[in-house]
Amino acid sequence: MAIDDVRTQPRDAESTQKAIAILKQQFGEKVQTGEAFREQHAHSTTYLPAQLPDGVFFAENAEDVKQAVKVCAEYKVPVIPFGTGSSLEGQVNAPEGGISIDVSRMDQVLEVNAEDLDCRVEPGVTREQLNDYLRDTGLFFPIDPGANASIGGMASTRASGTNAVRYGTMKDVVLSVTAVTADGEEITTAGRARKSSAGYDLTRLFVGAEGTLGIITSVTLRLAGIPEKIAGGVCSFETLEEACNAVIMTIQMGIPVARIELLDAMQVKACNAYSNLSFAETPLLLVEFHGTEDSVAMQSEMFGEIARECGGKDFTWTANAEERNRLWKARHSAYWAGRALAPELGSLSTDVCVPISRLAECVNETQKDIEKESFLAPIVGHAGDGNFHVLLLFNDKSPEEIARVEDFTTRLAERALAMGGTCTGEHGVGQGKKRLVAVEMGGSIGVMRAIKKALDPDNIFNPGKVFD
Amino acid sequence: MAIDDVRTQPRDAESTQKAIAILKQQFGEKVQTGEAFREQHAHSTTYLPAQLPDGVFFAENAEDVKQAVKVCAEYKVPVIPFGTGSSLEGQVNAPEGGISIDVSRMDQVLEVNAEDLDCRVEPGVTREQLNDYLRDTGLFFPIDPGANASIGGMASTRASGTNAVRYGTMKDVVLSVTAVTADGEEITTAGRARKSSAGYDLTRLFVGAEGTLGIITSVTLRLAGIPEKIAGGVCSFETLEEACNAVIMTIQMGIPVARIELLDAMQVKACNAYSNLSFAETPLLLVEFHGTEDSVAMQSEMFGEIARECGGKDFTWTANAEERNRLWKARHSAYWAGRALAPELGSLSTDVCVPISRLAECVNETQKDIEKESFLAPIVGHAGDGNFHVLLLFNDKSPEEIARVEDFTTRLAERALAMGGTCTGEHGVGQGKKRLVAVEMGGSIGVMRAIKKALDPDNIFNPGKVFD
Repeated sequence: MAIDDVRTQPRDAESTQKAIAILKQQFGEKVQTGEAFREQHAHSTTYLPAQLPDGVFFAENAEDVKQAVKVCAEYKVPVIPFGTGSSLEGQVNAPEGGISIDVSRMDQVLEVNAEDLDCRVEPGVTREQLNDYLRDTGLFFPIDPGANASIGGMASTRASGTNAVRYGTMKDVVLSVTAVTADGEEITTAGRARKSSAGYDLTRLFVGAEGTLGIITSVTLRLAGIPEKIAGGVCSFETLEEACNAVIMTIQMGIPVARIELLDAMQVKACNAYSNLSFAETPLLLVEFHGTEDSVAMQSEMFGEIARECGGKDFTWTANAEERNRLWKARHSAYWAGRALAPELGSLSTDVCVPISRLAECVNETQKDIEKESFLAPIVGHAGDGNFHVLLLFNDKSPEEIARVEDFTTRLAERALAMGGTCTGEHGVGQGKKRLVAVEMGGSIGVMRAIKKALDPDNIFNPGKVFD
Repeated sequence: MAIDDVRTQPRDAESTQKAIAILKQQFGEKVQTGEAFREQHAHSTTYLPAQLPDGVFFAENAEDVKQAVKVCAEYKVPVIPFGTGSSLEGQVNAPEGGISIDVSRMDQVLEVNAEDLDCRVEPGVTREQLNDYLRDTGLFFPIDPGANASIGGMASTRASGTNAVRYGTMKDVVLSVTAVTADGEEITTAGRARKSSAGYDLTRLFVGAEGTLGIITSVTLRLAGIPEKIAGGVCSFETLEEACNAVIMTIQMGIPVARIELLDAMQVKACNAYSNLSFAETPLLLVEFHGTEDSVAMQSEMFGEIARECGGKDFTWTANAEERNRLWKARHSAYWAGRALAPELGSLSTDVCVPISRLAECVNETQKDIEKESFLAPIVGHAGDGNFHVLLLFNDKSPEEIARVEDFTTRLAERALAMGGTCTGEHGVGQGKKRLVAVEMGGSIGVMRAIKKALDPDNIFNPGKVFD
């Protein structure tokens, strides 16, 4: 998407320039105001128009963040945290200008306590980097969105991904964060104990706050032991409903599946083309089981039975790592595979999550809606959580098309809400879902606003995100 | 303990009486001001002196709670939520007087969505009542503190218990709450989806807030499937260190133990006497495994090997339900068994939680401290979480003894904090741990205070709890 710089409410330009000048004097090259830097930091994987910050500050440690926040707080200049820019709802945009705090240089793994299955990392560490680092410990970091996102960003959007059905989301694995609050001081939200009742759960408050309450400077994470055995498999279905029903039964039976991913026919077609695969172009489930040799075999057999019962074709499973990795690489490329269906078009990746019993119904109605609108829009989902994505490919230069897409996402969100679900399972709110979250949360939005105002009275932290 | 009525800061008596009069007029018998009612509602399982409310309001539905809060908000009268009164740190005391809102009549299971493994209950439903209700569904509510606490109270103190090592704490199983906030309106913090990124995690903010931010009027809970097979066993050890080492290895090996409880020699002695058992009066581990027949057998065998390696004697396990229930009944009576060691004495049950690798060290040092002080103080713990309790039996009429006990709990908390742990794993803060939590949380207490002030500017909700 082209770079547009559409600010909704620019703040006082003079104050912003003063703050930048002070930071430049103190930090020199760590502060950049060139167009290229500013563009890069507003450019996220989103359909929303880019809104450029006035400057970019490359923080190298928590002390840098504290200083930058202190200066920005004094001049009431917006502070927008930036990890890798892989968020999908405009979380890194700067609608009121300000300074993007890029934490990608804060990329140290600070400690690994293998004997306690935890570690502490700086926010710029990416999930792949962390798993490389952990390779020899027998442990891994299980949260696995498609992108190689930063841990700070993943915490801030309450990310999850393919493994969440077994290992939880960032809400579950973040034990504690340190964060710089509006007074420029750093707080620690908890210790390393597995559980605590010591006051308000500030850890969970910062997880999912999308940088609106402070800047995360380190994250303590619970890790998982690498399973003795991993088995995976694929199963094609005639219809989406059959595939969803197999997911529902798997969850209801309590099979501790580690991953259970749904691809609709269009997404399978996209992945076949993009990753050189040859699956039948009908709905597909990709599954993975973690455990002992016996247990993964048993889980695979049980799933196979369920799949057959639901109309699945030729379920096969394998413990062969190479074959498995090829499959999951294709799954992780689903977004780019989808985009490649129509590289000339813009895209919007939306996500909803419903109680598992409503998954088939929600996906089915959504696909009918897609057909009715003649959208090119593959569906892919972390079906075990009741969570699925629609990647809408459309002409984002056409106001009519944009309006049609927005109406579609509104209908999708309303459908999920009517089923007891949420308008976003893992992408977060950013700018794109503010109006939907306002509907979903009702009076709770007032409570969120009150908290925001109490902790950030001058609204310097990532203004214009989550709610208005 | 005798009833003392020691208010720290009584509020305006006239306003309180006005509010009570208005509520009496509107609600008649639902409002009680007799001494017996007031005493009962200040009397919790705590060492702290009782501080009586001025009246008790028996709410029967959310509408009642809204009305009561509206009246109390208008007259700035404290509102103290009351479930079953089983909290341990003075959470139900009324240091500034006010009205105790008893939710025990709000005891309806509102819905069970068996196909989604969730349910919604009123706050006065107790955990045993819920499990009775669920009996025929194949599901159970896994959070299991000793007392038959109310779900509202368990949510408010972020309770856990013996199953937490496998099934998590209230933080993990509460999907959503409805709560009446300071404006007398009811908010809903989330839907029923298994995960959501829709704004701030208000669910987790209310879980553990101890009623200081609002009154919980319903709780949506994630349930677990009743395991196909349950096996349990006991193993005696010569020393606490050996027993702790067996726990540490079990967790580090990733054995998905459902319960792993530690009793020191004194606690075993107490349980033998109270529950008519005949265990060797040395440190003991009680374990339980959930899964398929094969898997519980394998887990039991693996644990047996670890126990032997660590010096355990004669580990035996059984899938016999009657024998198992007898054991766990004894475990759940541990508190009363401890009290029965010296019924003439007062008691203080304290709890800390440390990273699992430090468990042996922390328990060992604590026992040395107990010996040095010649305290009668059994230790019992949810060892798999690194969480343990000390039940101090002491003359609570002696200021010197009280001071010695307070010094001990301070040393215990400091020991846990120095190891990266917390001063309370599951009892919460109430009045008793405010000073310790202030040390533990440092600057984060300021953030908690700001949130409290934003959501409850007149400090009507459970004043004097969690922090000053």
